[in-house]
Amino acid sequence: MQMTSTQPVRVAVAGASGYAGGEFLRLAANHPHLEIGALTAHSNAGATLGSLQPHLRSLADRVLEPTGVEALAGHDVVVLALPHGASGQIAAALPGDVVAVDLGADHRLTDAAAWEQFYGSPHAGTWPYGLPELLHADGSRQRDALRGATRIAVPGCNVTAVTLGLQPGVAAGVIETDDVVAVLANGYSGAGKALKTHLLASEALGAAAPYAVGGTHRHIPEIRQNLTVAGARDVRISFTPTLVPMSRGILATATARLAPGTDPAAVRQAWVDAYADEPFVHLLPEGQWPSTAMTLGANTALVQVAVDAAAGRVVTVTAIDNLVKGTAGAAVQSLNLALGLPETAGLITEGVAP
Amino acid sequence: MQMTSTQPVRVAVAGASGYAGGEFLRLAANHPHLEIGALTAHSNAGATLGSLQPHLRSLADRVLEPTGVEALAGHDVVVLALPHGASGQIAAALPGDVVAVDLGADHRLTDAAAWEQFYGSPHAGTWPYGLPELLHADGSRQRDALRGATRIAVPGCNVTAVTLGLQPGVAAGVIETDDVVAVLANGYSGAGKALKTHLLASEALGAAAPYAVGGTHRHIPEIRQNLTVAGARDVRISFTPTLVPMSRGILATATARLAPGTDPAAVRQAWVDAYADEPFVHLLPEGQWPSTAMTLGANTALVQVAVDAAAGRVVTVTAIDNLVKGTAGAAVQSLNLALGLPETAGLITEGVAP
Amino acid sequence: MQMTSTQPVRVAVAGASGYAGGEFLRLAANHPHLEIGALTAHSNAGATLGSLQPHLRSLADRVLEPTGVEALAGHDVVVLALPHGASGQIAAALPGDVVAVDLGADHRLTDAAAWEQFYGSPHAGTWPYGLPELLHADGSRQRDALRGATRIAVPGCNVTAVTLGLQPGVAAGVIETDDVVAVLANGYSGAGKALKTHLLASEALGAAAPYAVGGTHRHIPEIRQNLTVAGARDVRISFTPTLVPMSRGILATATARLAPGTDPAAVRQAWVDAYADEPFVHLLPEGQWPSTAMTLGANTALVQVAVDAAAGRVVTVTAIDNLVKGTAGAAVQSLNLALGLPETAGLITEGVAP
Amino acid sequence: MQMTSTQPVRVAVAGASGYAGGEFLRLAANHPHLEIGALTAHSNAGATLGSLQPHLRSLADRVLEPTGVEALAGHDVVVLALPHGASGQIAAALPGDVVAVDLGADHRLTDAAAWEQFYGSPHAGTWPYGLPELLHADGSRQRDALRGATRIAVPGCNVTAVTLGLQPGVAAGVIETDDVVAVLANGYSGAGKALKTHLLASEALGAAAPYAVGGTHRHIPEIRQNLTVAGARDVRISFTPTLVPMSRGILATATARLAPGTDPAAVRQAWVDAYADEPFVHLLPEGQWPSTAMTLGANTALVQVAVDAAAGRVVTVTAIDNLVKGTAGAAVQSLNLALGLPETAGLITEGVAP
Repeated sequence: MQMTSTQPVRVAVAGASGYAGGEFLRLAANHPHLEIGALTAHSNAGATLGSLQPHLRSLADRVLEPTGVEALAGHDVVVLALPHGASGQIAAALPGDVVAVDLGADHRLTDAAAWEQFYGSPHAGTWPYGLPELLHADGSRQRDALRGATRIAVPGCNVTAVTLGLQPGVAAGVIETDDVVAVLANGYSGAGKALKTHLLASEALGAAAPYAVGGTHRHIPEIRQNLTVAGARDVRISFTPTLVPMSRGILATATARLAPGTDPAAVRQAWVDAYADEPFVHLLPEGQWPSTAMTLGANTALVQVAVDAAAGRVVTVTAIDNLVKGTAGAAVQSLNLALGLPETAGLITEGVAP
Repeated sequence: MQMTSTQPVRVAVAGASGYAGGEFLRLAANHPHLEIGALTAHSNAGATLGSLQPHLRSLADRVLEPTGVEALAGHDVVVLALPHGASGQIAAALPGDVVAVDLGADHRLTDAAAWEQFYGSPHAGTWPYGLPELLHADGSRQRDALRGATRIAVPGCNVTAVTLGLQPGVAAGVIETDDVVAVLANGYSGAGKALKTHLLASEALGAAAPYAVGGTHRHIPEIRQNLTVAGARDVRISFTPTLVPMSRGILATATARLAPGTDPAAVRQAWVDAYADEPFVHLLPEGQWPSTAMTLGANTALVQVAVDAAAGRVVTVTAIDNLVKGTAGAAVQSLNLALGLPETAGLITEGVAP
Repeated sequence: MQMTSTQPVRVAVAGASGYAGGEFLRLAANHPHLEIGALTAHSNAGATLGSLQPHLRSLADRVLEPTGVEALAGHDVVVLALPHGASGQIAAALPGDVVAVDLGADHRLTDAAAWEQFYGSPHAGTWPYGLPELLHADGSRQRDALRGATRIAVPGCNVTAVTLGLQPGVAAGVIETDDVVAVLANGYSGAGKALKTHLLASEALGAAAPYAVGGTHRHIPEIRQNLTVAGARDVRISFTPTLVPMSRGILATATARLAPGTDPAAVRQAWVDAYADEPFVHLLPEGQWPSTAMTLGANTALVQVAVDAAAGRVVTVTAIDNLVKGTAGAAVQSLNLALGLPETAGLITEGVAP
Repeated sequence: MQMTSTQPVRVAVAGASGYAGGEFLRLAANHPHLEIGALTAHSNAGATLGSLQPHLRSLADRVLEPTGVEALAGHDVVVLALPHGASGQIAAALPGDVVAVDLGADHRLTDAAAWEQFYGSPHAGTWPYGLPELLHADGSRQRDALRGATRIAVPGCNVTAVTLGLQPGVAAGVIETDDVVAVLANGYSGAGKALKTHLLASEALGAAAPYAVGGTHRHIPEIRQNLTVAGARDVRISFTPTLVPMSRGILATATARLAPGTDPAAVRQAWVDAYADEPFVHLLPEGQWPSTAMTLGANTALVQVAVDAAAGRVVTVTAIDNLVKGTAGAAVQSLNLALGLPETAGLITEGVAP
């Protein structure tokens, strides 16, 4: 489906009461080419959006319909912001020319066995992967696969941060991938609105705590998949996310061994080359390190890289807003490509700081 | 000066390294009619904007010039984001047809004696006041005074929150103003980048603390001025701001005695009437109370009102982003009026939440 | 019951999995005269304390029993940290010589009608009120009523903050009480472990928001009761709590009109006199204002007072740790009095700062 | 110097206005055997402690003297809470039988070359290292070296967290140390009261940001030293601290490759054995991970370990309060050993949570 800039594109959002759906709506409300159609929810059907997402002022009076094919029909685009497992059935019932964008995990992995190992359910199939900047071993980028696509699987937020940090080194062959270590500082919105004691403000304030330690996090196979696309042959990764007291943001510290024989002075050039022309991935000047606050609310990923010669490792740090570049912004960016719109339409690079 | 929407308006910003200047630039960078010209600073002249305001990605390579009339000349608009006392001299040297917007305090007060009492320096004169929604006793609103203006004094952030909360009751005569009490929860960005021990993160995290207690805060005469414009005859106000651990936001709880003989059931209508047509002031549905997070990064003020019959008081709560509706958003909104642009141009009503 | 300092006092805690019960245990674990006996819970019975309160290292292996008279029998002291409504029945079944300490609301109010109006259930009766510093109109203090008591109703946390702030002025007759206004900044632990969306970290971080606005908060009749004990005849209060992003702490800004004919210079003396000999209430030096961080984890209340002559109001600010002086510390302090121990035993005045 | 428990030990603190000195005083004020003598400061000499450390209520009226040998003379113990470089000279002037405790870095490293490389100044010499739990390759622990000591070098806070996390695996030979990766989440109090823009609350709130990336942090040689004491032969470590929005706490995620031929099932036993009898290091039950909030204000280190077989790495996570177990608590614990007091005197294991 190719849109001209004068046609409004009608978008329905399934799961409009959650954080991912709400964030897509925040971006869509200020997108020059999107028109917001049906909004659906499960247990919140019947409520106004204003009672659940009071920050979305221009949509406050919209009433949520029950999630189902009926409500979603008749739109150019359907955004699925649903728990994993729920989007496959709905997607199957949508006409083939409707652009379906899945913010959930169901259609990200190409390896059905890895899906089943980490998610414990049957694999729903693979959709074009919504990380336009993903480097391919053949020198192309993922955005080519998104132009004109009618199905888009938006990446996991942690995956985006780690992939953007490491992939230039993989593609250039200056790092080894068989002993990657990534530790992330994560804001609480990544956990969604689930009502669990450890997600309460009283528990979170003043606390830093890890979760899914020791190789169990579901984003691990997706990182392996991306680095393999970028050219890695054997990816092993120790991955530890930690919750820290902020609502949004991921700061991913990802390190890998310097490839034998690599001139440390040559490392930075790989990152310069990878991101020189990317509108949403910024390699900071040498010596300046990313902070999540720099990109709050923006679709920008900020990256920095250094060589620790004594440790024999390349260290990368990447900051994103988990709900924007990590979720809804990636969806809009990929959707722009799918619809033939300017890739940057409706997306902002300036963070809300301080 | 009247602009047509096809002319780009060139804006210079004096004080681009501070929070107020940076926020104006964040908004201006995404404004359809503004073009960012010279950026100046005092001690940071010579540095790139990216080293000081790394969230402003599209302007990262801009170099700051020394603040002075030379750098600011030749622009359609000059924004002064300077410490109070500094803008008067520069403003005096600008041609009369340049639109000067003062984000500082110098030109807000009409009462020179009040200025001298609270600021301890000679009064620099009064400019048209940049709160378009300010109600006048004659039924008009302040936006009329801003159309075509070449000088704009942007209000104090706390003043905006308290004024928007209380003025409907003043104008409608349903509250008394001789014993107003306002207590505010304030984010730290309101204190600017001043290097003071009590503004350190280590001191702020986990802490709530008042400042300028007991009638000394400089925003008091400005609140009195606004409520008088709205029709009050005698304004006395107990005003206490408190710093709480957030970067942005003001939550103003402002209460006033119910006017004798007022039917409590009639109170809400005053607020409904005042804000029904305002694009940036939203009276929430009954029972829903504002949170600062609802309007982070947005130009929206959220207001709620209730009558506490047992206490004999009307209670209002208003949430704004101190740097947007409280400062730079008010500047853009007023500037839009001054330039004959749509009042809402370049301004967003959706907050970045959660 | 009078203990000598050589007898260990055996204490059972009903509701050991919640914040109030946990905090009592934190203090009791380091109290020289208390020995911790049975710990009970409702839905968490059977779990280890370490799995629910991992900060209580010395008690980590204790197993929670089901809450009921059986488990609680045979102790010198029973602490009830239960939802309101639940303690009355259990208390009734305890022998009269057991010291029962209720951290909940059931036994605080003397006015059954006020109870029924604000809590909507039958009144369970009144116990001696656990605020030792409460001033009585006859010049005595509440601690006299607590010596040897076998029933203790621990005050509400907000009530303690507002009462300590205002009562010196009431007792000395320098303020009027018919138009008190109190606005509080509250940490999230005051809301307990209830699983509600607005208590999630993702919602709380970066947000300030009021609740129970407009005269509905259940602590209002309790404040009225205390100020009446201190000598007020007609208490009307506008009371607004606001949640701010910290786990612990209450900062209460409470103002009242200066009594006619009062010399402003004489006001401070009332506060000096009231608290000169109090071990846990500190009037700060003139010009220094309280912060909640100053008293984190401590049983100290920090108070400051100023006269705003222009507004005609006395402004007081009080900081406490809601779980210590606001709950469990007040319980220990009152229990010390009941048991004939030094009032300060097991209580610390130094806050954990920064 | 051996004390009996009936003698009060007189302690002077040089640098009482900073965070480390203040924290030592917080602990000392509640220590059964310590008596607080002279308090000194540099630029704050002449001020009351209450104006600078208002949380230390019992010492609020103490006046700070200028730092120098004169004020410090005549005490049994002198605690040096000074910037690195300042303690050597003062220590040299103290009588040999005075117990000097250095909270700074000057006397920690045994390798003068490493000192000069990382600190850029001449080495001041090495004092007994104040980490009682440090494992020695010969099976002994560091506490033996502290009994009766008259000089104590308190470890760096990050060093303590990483060492306690990894040393059991080093001593048991189940991990390799030539490719350790550690990433830490750090509270802002670790940066002290330095007035720097990036330490302001407005910058910190909502932000996670790394610093000293790429092998430059001064704690690196100290970690290498400790792991070598524990039996490592070749230690290479990639070390990245990140500031997150909390005042206190370190959460250290430290990983190392599983030693070839090691049975993953045997790994945990090394940690069980190392810490079974330690009063201040707690290995959590399997599956429970540490949070910094669990140990706020306490001298407890909480440790967990897991094997990530797919990644071939052992992952450890350690939480401490940087100002207690990371600084002042380690000082008290070591001082207790030096003075012949119970090692646990005046130290608390219960954290202030939530």
